[in-house]
Amino acid sequence: MRVLGVDPGLTRCGVGVVEGVAGRPLTMLGVGVVRTPADAELGQRLVAVEQGIEQWLDEHRPEFVAVERVFSQHNVRTVMGTAQASAVAMLCAARRGIPVALHTPSEVKAAVTGSGRADKAQVGAMVTRLLRLAAPPKPADAADALALAICHIWRAPAQNRLQQAVALHAAGAPSTSKGRRG
Amino acid sequence: MRVLGVDPGLTRCGVGVVEGVAGRPLTMLGVGVVRTPADAELGQRLVAVEQGIEQWLDEHRPEFVAVERVFSQHNVRTVMGTAQASAVAMLCAARRGIPVALHTPSEVKAAVTGSGRADKAQVGAMVTRLLRLAAPPKPADAADALALAICHIWRAPAQNRLQQAVALHAAGAPSTSKGRRG
Repeated sequence: MRVLGVDPGLTRCGVGVVEGVAGRPLTMLGVGVVRTPADAELGQRLVAVEQGIEQWLDEHRPEFVAVERVFSQHNVRTVMGTAQASAVAMLCAARRGIPVALHTPSEVKAAVTGSGRADKAQVGAMVTRLLRLAAPPKPADAADALALAICHIWRAPAQNRLQQAVALHAAGAPSTSKGRRG
Repeated sequence: MRVLGVDPGLTRCGVGVVEGVAGRPLTMLGVGVVRTPADAELGQRLVAVEQGIEQWLDEHRPEFVAVERVFSQHNVRTVMGTAQASAVAMLCAARRGIPVALHTPSEVKAAVTGSGRADKAQVGAMVTRLLRLAAPPKPADAADALALAICHIWRAPAQNRLQQAVALHAAGAPSTSKGRRG
């Protein structure tokens, strides 16, 4: 499974591609940051994010895109830019028919460190270890994007089983007898 | 000046096209709502908003797009969808090189009713009168989109003078002697 993780932002949008399956060593295929100038017009910044995401999709052809779920409880100013950048990332993926998954920051932290309240350094250290990198990816947005992709790969089997169960239930089939254990 | 007003939203995105200049009777060229199903995936809904906005841009070729400025103080759930839909509208316009302007809800209300705290009915009544319509556009999102376009046409001269002054100042020219009164 090849996943593009996106840590959305207007000034710095982290992007990272990870390939692998749960329970096996993972491979990083690419990591980077899409930047847009803070003094550019908002519309132009969104166009620049779109172009950046499109380049990553073109180059790596991911099967899934995992985007950080944005909450509006946080800083009022930054959250709007984050929501707008995440909308562009989701739009780019959905236009190509690539499934988009949203994961909360605490889900991502819990997936890679075991604690939903881990700090940036801890996430960076675990991403470095799990992907067998020489050094933590910089800036933190890039490391967070890789963590999102890892989180998606590890959570995907459970999510897929859940989706299968829901689909079976919706189709009127007995959902208990056909469950496959992964 | 032909302006597409966009009242952003995922479930209902109001769109309205108004042509005219400040101080002259205005003409409505079109009004409607881009709808997306609430049970569809977020990415698919954003793609549907994009397709809807593109159709309006194709059909009416506006020179400006006016979008409601989103604040995150309001309802936490709806504000994210509003921010995401507005990002798509801004993206569509900016991709075509169409200037995007943001106006706050109170700027729009003040422009068309004289009061920044006017209610929906008052905005609808004034839009109906100013565009000489037979009845208020329904739903309210459609009327709000027209109000945004009207607001932009009426505020534009002042904004253009401000932009000219800033540009002159940035170029080092004396900004007072060259100001043109509109």
